[in-house]
Amino acid sequence: MNVLPDQSRPIWETLTVIGVGLIGASVGLAAKRHRLARRVVGVGQSRASLDTARAVGAIDDGTHDLAEAARGADLIIVCTPVETIAERILSAAAVARPGTLLTDAGSTKAKIVTEVEERLPPGALFVGGHPLAGAEKSGPAHARADLFVGRVVVLTPTPRTPPDARAGAADFWRGLGARVRELAPDEHDRALALTSHLPHVAAAAVAGVTPVELLDLTAGGFRDTTRIAAGTPALWAGILRTNRAAVLAGLDRLAGRLDEFRRALEAGDAAALTALLTEAKRVRDALGS
Amino acid sequence: MNVLPDQSRPIWETLTVIGVGLIGASVGLAAKRHRLARRVVGVGQSRASLDTARAVGAIDDGTHDLAEAARGADLIIVCTPVETIAERILSAAAVARPGTLLTDAGSTKAKIVTEVEERLPPGALFVGGHPLAGAEKSGPAHARADLFVGRVVVLTPTPRTPPDARAGAADFWRGLGARVRELAPDEHDRALALTSHLPHVAAAAVAGVTPVELLDLTAGGFRDTTRIAAGTPALWAGILRTNRAAVLAGLDRLAGRLDEFRRALEAGDAAALTALLTEAKRVRDALGS
Repeated sequence: MNVLPDQSRPIWETLTVIGVGLIGASVGLAAKRHRLARRVVGVGQSRASLDTARAVGAIDDGTHDLAEAARGADLIIVCTPVETIAERILSAAAVARPGTLLTDAGSTKAKIVTEVEERLPPGALFVGGHPLAGAEKSGPAHARADLFVGRVVVLTPTPRTPPDARAGAADFWRGLGARVRELAPDEHDRALALTSHLPHVAAAAVAGVTPVELLDLTAGGFRDTTRIAAGTPALWAGILRTNRAAVLAGLDRLAGRLDEFRRALEAGDAAALTALLTEAKRVRDALGS
Repeated sequence: MNVLPDQSRPIWETLTVIGVGLIGASVGLAAKRHRLARRVVGVGQSRASLDTARAVGAIDDGTHDLAEAARGADLIIVCTPVETIAERILSAAAVARPGTLLTDAGSTKAKIVTEVEERLPPGALFVGGHPLAGAEKSGPAHARADLFVGRVVVLTPTPRTPPDARAGAADFWRGLGARVRELAPDEHDRALALTSHLPHVAAAAVAGVTPVELLDLTAGGFRDTTRIAAGTPALWAGILRTNRAAVLAGLDRLAGRLDEFRRALEAGDAAALTALLTEAKRVRDALGS
């Protein structure tokens, strides 16, 4: 875990988390646990989510009023579904005090960052971000203060990103125990298409073609391979749509590889099948258990 | 866990396990733990595997001599790679005493059962079997006495299967804590193509198209979805080859579903994407965590 020297540890007076689902509530909980923010304000549309976020200690106050919460914030992190992030950031930036740092936790970056930068007020401190952390379970009730410990958070600065935004966001995430990497937004999206979005579609496709009446004949392999297919459909539809080109390219690669399996199997070619499986094992073994 | 009444619990004098990898060694360990066999003999080609199996308590004696071990057995379970199972069963059946029960633990059944039944000596007691249990870790060192507890074991009788073989094999597996189901061999293979073999190919395809240098940008979704891609390539090549037609049919279904995702994404059709993801979630949620 990365811990900054005490004297340089940033303390934000007020952190505003917009969107208090699993990620937003975990950000709040972790920020309080690590004493990175004196006060955490949650913004959400659902009273129940705000109440739960407060009950689990993720936020001190909850409100439906984004503008009010943004005005009082030193750091604003938008953790809503990807399709609403750009608009939320711009709404917050329009009313935030000078010097307020704005970032997000969206799973896709190029579309969000482009939309935000096109309309961001001059001088606003914004950098895109994506914590590679999550769980099958959604909602603030499952928030965890340690969700980001040891995880990678990708920041996606552009030539227009103020250095203070990069440094501030990196300090914040490191303070929660994360490892920070920087990638250009489109570089992030091409990588995540393969490392996250494609596995999601594959898991959903495998689950989706399996008749429910055969589930009694599944074992650990099916269980693991399809686990993320239980994720929230609307959230993932948004992720796929906002990373359309890269996911389509990934789907082409996947279809091509499946076709190699099909041809090897049609030919009864044990060596070709073993080679394909060995290549997969090489990659998976490199990841570790 | 199914436990038979004590007075009817079958006790085999000598259980011979042919093939002492993870499954074979776990069968031996579990049979000893549940006192279903007074003596377990392991047959293997590798001295090291036999030594390990004995060291972990899975077998009492180990030998390279299949015929000798088969002659002394009351129950023989063949746990070798699928492509060698039929030959091992026939070799054992040729020398086994009358009344010796023969079965196997192969992941595919139609090819094995057909090959065995074509050449089985008259009166031999054979039924095919498949415990739906396993782990990423292979080899006798990872044997577990509880590997079959609560798991499904499929028996695949045919019209030629002696009733005593069905009953004996079912009693044995139930004695290890498993739930026993019966399916025709080709029914088993069509089902497992979808519930096991297709997920394996999908996991291997996703892992195989992922550049190793991007692994630092993976999270739990990739980890789960590709876990079984770490399985032993040669074993899985054998499984796929011995269930060729059903796996090819499964690959067609998977390719079709991936194409539906592709078309929905190309069209930017949020409703269609959400519907595909919802269908997958419905199946996965029905399985439970």
